[in-house]
Formats: sequence, structure tokens, C-alpha cells
Amino acid sequence: MHRIYFDNAATTSLAPEVLEAMMPYLTEKFGNPSSIYSYGREARMGIENARKSVAKILHAHPSEIFFTSGGTESSNTAITASVRDLGCRHIITSPIEHHATLHTVQHLYKESKVKLSYVKLLSNGHIDLADLENLLATATQKTLVTLMHANNEIGNLLDIKKVGELCKQYNAIFHSDTVQTVGHLPFDLENTHVHFITGSAHKFHGPKGIGLFYINRDVSIQPHIHGGAQERNMRAGTENLYGIVGFAKALEISTENYEADSAYILSLKQYMQQELIKHIPAVTFNGDVNGKSLYTVLSANFPQTEKSEMLLYNFDINHICVSGGSACSSGASQGSHVLQAIYDNPDFVTVRFSFCKHNTKEEVDEVITMLKTLL
Amino acid sequence: MHRIYFDNAATTSLAPEVLEAMMPYLTEKFGNPSSIYSYGREARMGIENARKSVAKILHAHPSEIFFTSGGTESSNTAITASVRDLGCRHIITSPIEHHATLHTVQHLYKESKVKLSYVKLLSNGHIDLADLENLLATATQKTLVTLMHANNEIGNLLDIKKVGELCKQYNAIFHSDTVQTVGHLPFDLENTHVHFITGSAHKFHGPKGIGLFYINRDVSIQPHIHGGAQERNMRAGTENLYGIVGFAKALEISTENYEADSAYILSLKQYMQQELIKHIPAVTFNGDVNGKSLYTVLSANFPQTEKSEMLLYNFDINHICVSGGSACSSGASQGSHVLQAIYDNPDFVTVRFSFCKHNTKEEVDEVITMLKTLL
Repeated sequence: MHRIYFDNAATTSLAPEVLEAMMPYLTEKFGNPSSIYSYGREARMGIENARKSVAKILHAHPSEIFFTSGGTESSNTAITASVRDLGCRHIITSPIEHHATLHTVQHLYKESKVKLSYVKLLSNGHIDLADLENLLATATQKTLVTLMHANNEIGNLLDIKKVGELCKQYNAIFHSDTVQTVGHLPFDLENTHVHFITGSAHKFHGPKGIGLFYINRDVSIQPHIHGGAQERNMRAGTENLYGIVGFAKALEISTENYEADSAYILSLKQYMQQELIKHIPAVTFNGDVNGKSLYTVLSANFPQTEKSEMLLYNFDINHICVSGGSACSSGASQGSHVLQAIYDNPDFVTVRFSFCKHNTKEEVDEVITMLKTLL
Repeated sequence: MHRIYFDNAATTSLAPEVLEAMMPYLTEKFGNPSSIYSYGREARMGIENARKSVAKILHAHPSEIFFTSGGTESSNTAITASVRDLGCRHIITSPIEHHATLHTVQHLYKESKVKLSYVKLLSNGHIDLADLENLLATATQKTLVTLMHANNEIGNLLDIKKVGELCKQYNAIFHSDTVQTVGHLPFDLENTHVHFITGSAHKFHGPKGIGLFYINRDVSIQPHIHGGAQERNMRAGTENLYGIVGFAKALEISTENYEADSAYILSLKQYMQQELIKHIPAVTFNGDVNGKSLYTVLSANFPQTEKSEMLLYNFDINHICVSGGSACSSGASQGSHVLQAIYDNPDFVTVRFSFCKHNTKEEVDEVITMLKTLL
């Protein structure tokens, strides 16, 4: 079956080279990394080499790199620990964050542990940095700012350095959900004022079930999961050995080929945008699509008609994989909290196309042809 | 290199059939299980079939089965939720629990959220059930009992049905860390009064980084990790698809061959015990070794001498993999909290041998020969 997969922001295929790097640990090198004998030491070495490699790529220190079960666990840990261990009594976030952030801050709010402020959005979906500064300047309690680096539904990019500087100025803790950008954009953590970032290998051709948690060495927190002394007492539980090795390998590959791959993927996004404008009347795009936007994501709006409402269904039966909002809201009937926050009452059908290096112009052409037929 | 791996309570090799079952999901079936199109649905089907299979084997309902990143996360979730959501203000545990339990209850105790009671141990390391009943009978607040099914260091088995009946009688919540028994012993959860059990695939030839969390349908709790709606809102984060498929396959294999495998492994344990007694003067064994004991674990004590103190080191250079206490305390110099709790001041060198179906009598013979030389 010929499938077109334009949903790479939901998950990506595992790179064969990554699987190859994982295979020794899925077969003969199966030791428990906490064991001191040979089997354990070779497993431990796999983990520590992965940590060093990830740290080097992100310009961090290996002692700042932790492995978790995924971006969601990392964000939960960062936010919960900022309140429990770092004294934050006020959280500033935005209404377009991922649910890993929103549901965690709302849980803390319901437990009466924090005051909660939502920063205003500009009409193009960007964070209103003037409002953020105003919130920070008027805050009376220690504050956590949690804002995502790239929005997973519309692709808008936050100026993470600028937000970091604001947080530094107002002595706030800064957590950024970087799940859509780790493995997609270069990081220079040494020169970025951020306390916590997160990552998920399956967003950049790595395995599922393994995440990154960066903790800046200036802060000290307690674990979210207690138990054994793994991850230097920061994350208990026998390590997901192959996942960790796969995370590092996937990040290495994406870093090596960043210039060429990102330029190519951007050209696909631009081509798709241009073809949509050419062939689909009244199509519009979400977010700052030609400005500060992730090169992988194109979120398009189609006027609401009987035909467009069947769009996701028809894409599916034609073996085209796309999302409504994010993977969690793929059903056409489910509303997107992101679009709801940006538009008062969105009256169009939104499709998120998200690309990877394996996609082609020919696939874009096929999808455009299909769209012309369907609409 | 010829290695003898007698540390199967720390971790096990991944079964080739399990890896084979995982491979389609590591290659072409890479969809996000939350996506509604074809790729997503085939991933979703993999997860739901795994859930049904696990539920059937454990005599539970599929809606009671959740997948987490491991046994440690499952125990953290159970214990934390019992306090936060089920009103438990008193925890009864034992001093020989796994750190996933002990460090979690101690964290809650330090946060002044619970009263903490440690049940007495009998001289053979078993839980004193009369003391447990006394603690339950005199409890003035809603109580959580958290006691492990099989001790990972000495192999003692808890009468989980009996403890469940006591908890029922005194209206207590019961969590059992069953990481050493899921995949090793049959379960009949329908007829066991337990609210939470846990499991870890890598303890029975499944993959690392994937755990079981059973929540009895009579209780309703909030998640430990907030975010997306995965696992019916109980555990957020893109699912570890291959891990889940691998968990179910490993459990199926272990269940199919339970009678033969457990009898064979028990024969190895008994043979090793008998040979140790025959050849090593003054050797003793921890726990109820010939009574209620897991067939996989044999914990032996050697009189403390200059030679025995180098035992683990010498085992290692001879490519024999064993533990001191558990994997987390493999270093000879680290004390075991389990042995410390049972003996006042243990003055011997303890080695945990733990077996699997791939071990042989010949390997036992080799280890005995080695021991005779070393001591």
C-alpha cells in the first residue's frame, strides 16, 4: 500500500541506523546498567556515552542531561519540582501549550499550590512578550515561566533566548517544552538562560518511550519518580538502555545533516503552501507561517463546507496521514485548544501537514491533486 | 567470551521471539497510536491486543491494565495516589521493600502527608502477619499496606491472598510490588483482594523501559504523569509501542511454559544449594529458602574472610555475573538494607544467584568449582 505520511510532528519512523545502534543492546548487551560486572559495565558505558554525546550536541554538561520515558514525563518533573523544590508559587504559561504542560499546571492550580497566569497571544499566535514582561514585573511571588519552544499544532517559534533573558531579569525559573525542536534545531544551552528543557526521540526518527530532561546545573530538584539510584538519583527505575542509545544516535544523525535536511524540508513546506494557495480557493494558514515558524509544520485552514468536513476521513481512505490539530486531536470532530485560543470561534477545517526528510515534492503534488478532487 | 549469567533477578536477556514481535513496530508500523488514520490504528491495535492478552493472563479486566515506563513508576503512582486520591493517611510497609517503595513512602512521610509503620519481620525474613494484623486493627486512619510479593534479594514470597484478606477486613488499600513475580508466577487478580500490582518486562525476558500497572476497578485515581489522553487519561505521553507489544509477548511466553520452566529453574536452585552445602564450609542461606520462596532466587552467605570479600570481584574477572544484594547494591562494599533489617549486623559476604531457563547444571558446576578455588 502506498502511503503518504505528512504527520511527522505526531511521530516519525525509526531510522534504520538508529535501530542498528540499538540492536546490540536488544540482543547480547542486555546487562542491568547498575550491575558492576562486565554485562553491567558495557550497558552503563552505552548510557554514559549517549549522555556525553547529547550534552555535546546541546552545548550542555553531561551532568545536566537526564533520560526519562518521554517529553511528557520531563515536563511534569520540571513543573512539579519548580513548585515543590524551587519555591515557585506563581506559574506563567500560555493557553496554547501542550497538554503535558497545561494539565500539569492546572493540576497544581487545583491543588491550590500556585497562582496561574496565562500570557496574552498576538493575532499570529505568538506570545505577547510585552505582556509576559508585564506579568513578570508585577509578580509578587517566585515565578515559573513555562512556554514551549515550537508550537506543535501551528509551528510558531518562541524566541527562547529573549524569554530566557526576561526570566533572568525578573529572577524567574524558566521551563521550555522543546519536544518539537530538539533534533530539529541547534541548541546552545550554555548561552541560553533556561532551567529545564525536554525532548522526545520519536519526534526525530528515534525510538518511542525515551525522553530528554535537561536540568541546568544552577538548580537542584528532587525526582518525580523515587526508587533506585539511577540517573544520579534523579530518575529511578532500570534504564531504558536501547532507548537511551537510540536517542543519542537519532540526535547525532539529525545534527550531522541539519543544514541540508532543514533546507530541504523547508522547501517542501513552502512548496506545499504555494501549491495550496494556487489551487485551493480561500485557504489560509495558521501562525507566523512565513516568519518565526518551524520548518516542519504547515497548518492550513479550509473553508467549512460539507466536503471539507470530510477531509480527514477522505485523506485516510486515500492513505494520506495528516492531523487535525495534534495527534491527540486527530479526529475532525475534536476541537483544538490551540486554535480556539487564537481565534475566537474557528469556522474552518484545519489540517496540519508536518514533513520530514523522507517526504518528496511528488507527494505534495499527490496531496494537492487529491485535495482538488475532494474539495 | 564465555559468560555465566546468574543475575536474572536484576535483568534478563530479551527473548528473540519477543524482539521478533516488536520488530514490525520498530520498522513499518511506526504510527502514533493516538492518530486516527491507518498508521495510528494499527499501532493502537497493537497496544489494545497487548492489553487484552495481559489482562487475560492475570485474570483481570483490560480496563484494569495500564502500561507505564516500569515497575518503579507504577509503584510511585500507586503509593502517591493512595495518599492523594484515596485518603490514606497511614502507610504500613516493611523495611525490606524495594527502594521504589521505601523511597516513595519516606518522601511522603517527610512531606508530613502520612504516618509510617514498619511491620515486624520473622527471623526468616517473612512478614510477621500477626504484627500486620495488629497494626491494621489499631490503625486510626485510612491505611495503605504496601508489601512486595517476592523479595528481590532473598526471594521470600508473601502470602498475597492472605494479606489481601486482612486488608479487606480492615478496609485498607493494598499495593503489592510484584515486579519479581509477574511473568514468574500465575496470578488470579479476580480472586485476590489487591488494589495495585506492578510489573517490569525486563525481569522475564521482555524489553526494558516498559512496566505494568494494575488498578483494581474498585478504586479511581488520578495520574502521576499529566498530559495527553493516553492510557485512558491515566498515563500521559506517546505510548512505548514496541515496549507494550514486547511486554505482552514476554508474558505470553512465560505463561505458556510456566510449569516446565519453573520446575527446571527450581531444580537448578536446589542443585546449587545442595552443591554449596556439599563443598563450601559454613555456607548459609537467606530467607525461607526451602519454604515460601521464589524458585529463581538463591541468596547465600559466605563467612567473612579476606578471600570471600574479594568474591564478587573475582566472579567478575572470571565472567560470572552475580549480585551482592540487588542490582543496585552489586558493589561488595555497599550494604544491603534487606540483610541489615533481617540480621542485626550481618558479618558474612552475601551473593545472590538468580536463575532463568537458559541456565544449566553445568554452569552451576562451573561456579561451584570456581568458588572452591576462590575460597
